[in-house]
Amino acid sequence: MVRRPEEFREKQGIDVFLRHRVNRLDPKAKQIEVEDLEKGEKRSVGYDKLVLASGARSRRLGLPGEEAENLFTLKDLEDAIRLKQYVYRRQPNRVGILGSGYIGLEMAEAFRLRGLETTVFYRGTHPVSHLEPEISEHVLKELEANGVRFLGEHKPVALTTEGEGEIVSIETTKGQYPVDLVLTAFGVVPNVEIARDAGIRLGKTGAVWTDEGQRTDHPDIYAGGDCCEVHHQILEDSIFMPLGDVANKQGRVAGENAAGGKATFDGVVGSQCFQVFSLEVAATGITERVAREKGMDIGIQKIEASSKVHYMPGAKPLLLKIVFERPSGRLLGGHMVGREGVARRINTLAVAVQSRLTVQALSRMDFAYAPQFSAPFDPILIAAEQALKKL
Amino acid sequence: MVRRPEEFREKQGIDVFLRHRVNRLDPKAKQIEVEDLEKGEKRSVGYDKLVLASGARSRRLGLPGEEAENLFTLKDLEDAIRLKQYVYRRQPNRVGILGSGYIGLEMAEAFRLRGLETTVFYRGTHPVSHLEPEISEHVLKELEANGVRFLGEHKPVALTTEGEGEIVSIETTKGQYPVDLVLTAFGVVPNVEIARDAGIRLGKTGAVWTDEGQRTDHPDIYAGGDCCEVHHQILEDSIFMPLGDVANKQGRVAGENAAGGKATFDGVVGSQCFQVFSLEVAATGITERVAREKGMDIGIQKIEASSKVHYMPGAKPLLLKIVFERPSGRLLGGHMVGREGVARRINTLAVAVQSRLTVQALSRMDFAYAPQFSAPFDPILIAAEQALKKL
Repeated sequence: MVRRPEEFREKQGIDVFLRHRVNRLDPKAKQIEVEDLEKGEKRSVGYDKLVLASGARSRRLGLPGEEAENLFTLKDLEDAIRLKQYVYRRQPNRVGILGSGYIGLEMAEAFRLRGLETTVFYRGTHPVSHLEPEISEHVLKELEANGVRFLGEHKPVALTTEGEGEIVSIETTKGQYPVDLVLTAFGVVPNVEIARDAGIRLGKTGAVWTDEGQRTDHPDIYAGGDCCEVHHQILEDSIFMPLGDVANKQGRVAGENAAGGKATFDGVVGSQCFQVFSLEVAATGITERVAREKGMDIGIQKIEASSKVHYMPGAKPLLLKIVFERPSGRLLGGHMVGREGVARRINTLAVAVQSRLTVQALSRMDFAYAPQFSAPFDPILIAAEQALKKL
Repeated sequence: MVRRPEEFREKQGIDVFLRHRVNRLDPKAKQIEVEDLEKGEKRSVGYDKLVLASGARSRRLGLPGEEAENLFTLKDLEDAIRLKQYVYRRQPNRVGILGSGYIGLEMAEAFRLRGLETTVFYRGTHPVSHLEPEISEHVLKELEANGVRFLGEHKPVALTTEGEGEIVSIETTKGQYPVDLVLTAFGVVPNVEIARDAGIRLGKTGAVWTDEGQRTDHPDIYAGGDCCEVHHQILEDSIFMPLGDVANKQGRVAGENAAGGKATFDGVVGSQCFQVFSLEVAATGITERVAREKGMDIGIQKIEASSKVHYMPGAKPLLLKIVFERPSGRLLGGHMVGREGVARRINTLAVAVQSRLTVQALSRMDFAYAPQFSAPFDPILIAAEQALKKL
């Protein structure tokens, strides 16, 4: 816990009620129905302004056996404690992970570092399939090099339980696999039931719609975080992208406006980074696939470069792929993978994407150079310069 | 040597003449006078287009004793070899470094790592005095923590020699200091003699003037690299900033235009980074002092933040100072110091400065977040957001 309820009260005058569930929202009466889960008591609480921050929950398989004690999700602290305790107490040997996003792969690493036999099952062919295929290819190799078995095109169809109802094997579209522990990690769904029942508008993504001030379509009701959609600046459309830093920003805008402010949130461009074993992955903007699906006229530039001057200790190759609009040259996306100097480089491209910079402008940037941090021509400059030939 | 002369010839059809000195340039006759230093022969060579890349040389003390065998500069490979051989052969114990820029401090580190008693003499009060004083303060502490003695406000006035003419002590405005080896490292001066004698225009900095296509004021004569001035985008003025990456870019533009192209070089904003011991320093744009000297109405925001989420191993505090114009909010400079995640962060600010972004826009950027690389709010976002209150 970052802060205790008393700290909110003492330092900021904010009352925090834990173990209190809101069951219903009545926008007309401006009231919420709150249930004290300790005492089992319900009461109505009025509000002048309301901020919805109901979050999201792990997507479920929808298969019998999903309630087994040895099946886990990883959404909140309680999930993590439950999982860790089970691993310590029961010493499972074979772990099956369903899903191949950041959570699934970070947990695959954690299980492998504990020496467990770890298999990732995924319906697609490659891990982190929302990223560029070139990146997924590197991630796949990194998983395999570290002893994680990745089974692509495996869709789970059944969970076999035994004894006290524990799962003993996973059946997929391709076979039967014995397991001692299952982690499901294929995304989250927004908690919108209370909002929906109150007649608050949901967007086409299924999450709560808001304007750029995090206002819902109901007066005096704001929303922020994983229960909401977010505006994508390049797609010029709403998407569901439940990431911690986005939630943080939305929450601040919602709170400020609920208190009478005029804050706005510009939305996102999809900046993200993660690490699996010693591989760093980072992205900003849109992928080649998304750009093509949108029917954009685009160019692609891929380069392999060194993370720093090649003769410096620790220099590692990295792959950089940029996506740009033609003929304007506007940078639409940047995607990187490597073992060093990747994640901390991506925000340079993030600013370029959000400033609507062209590859022409990017290729002329004055960047800081020292051999232990970069080549005289940073990989970003090399990619931008090579892209000029494709406009 | 990155490439041998034969490689230039075979791969690119470029003839390279080493140990050949150009003594004179005759723009009217379109000829240069070349001296073969091996054979002692002189000859005239005609040209259609000429690129001046005469570089720079170490600034000299101008004191008797400067020719001593145990006084060194560090400008080129030969200097480095000579210095290294001397250190191996003669095993000096006490080193005096005159100057406190990047070269002087990097060498102070190198000498300390060899266990030598190392003293840096500087006429100013703090090292790297072209940077923000907050950064200089950290650098000073880092030098002292690693056993380098920094003597500020010491201007050298004499070198005492003995025996075969070797320097045995340095006399400064404050005292006499015994030394076994002296390194002078207080900048370089552009090699402009041939250009000047040929009537080619020099700028007010004393270096060769060029336009944005690296053309001199003489037809068919281009120039690039450390012999040239460079345009500063924020100061909107020419400066002398002899850095390797800048030289590289100027040389490419000069070469392309000499070959009939139409390349341009936008100039610099002063992006730079360096490391001394375990301290990383990085900067882009202009400092508070320069902005005030220019009479700009500016705001300053300083923050201390963690290089990554505080609970992650390896998280280190960093100091970020941004300089912005008022009331517009335009970002004019960013300056960082810390032990982790500094140098690779600066180009994010470099793009912002060069895109003329305001702190308002910067505070809304969608950056990539993972706890091992950054906090959910990157230090850059925190600084920009806090700056909003000062507009």
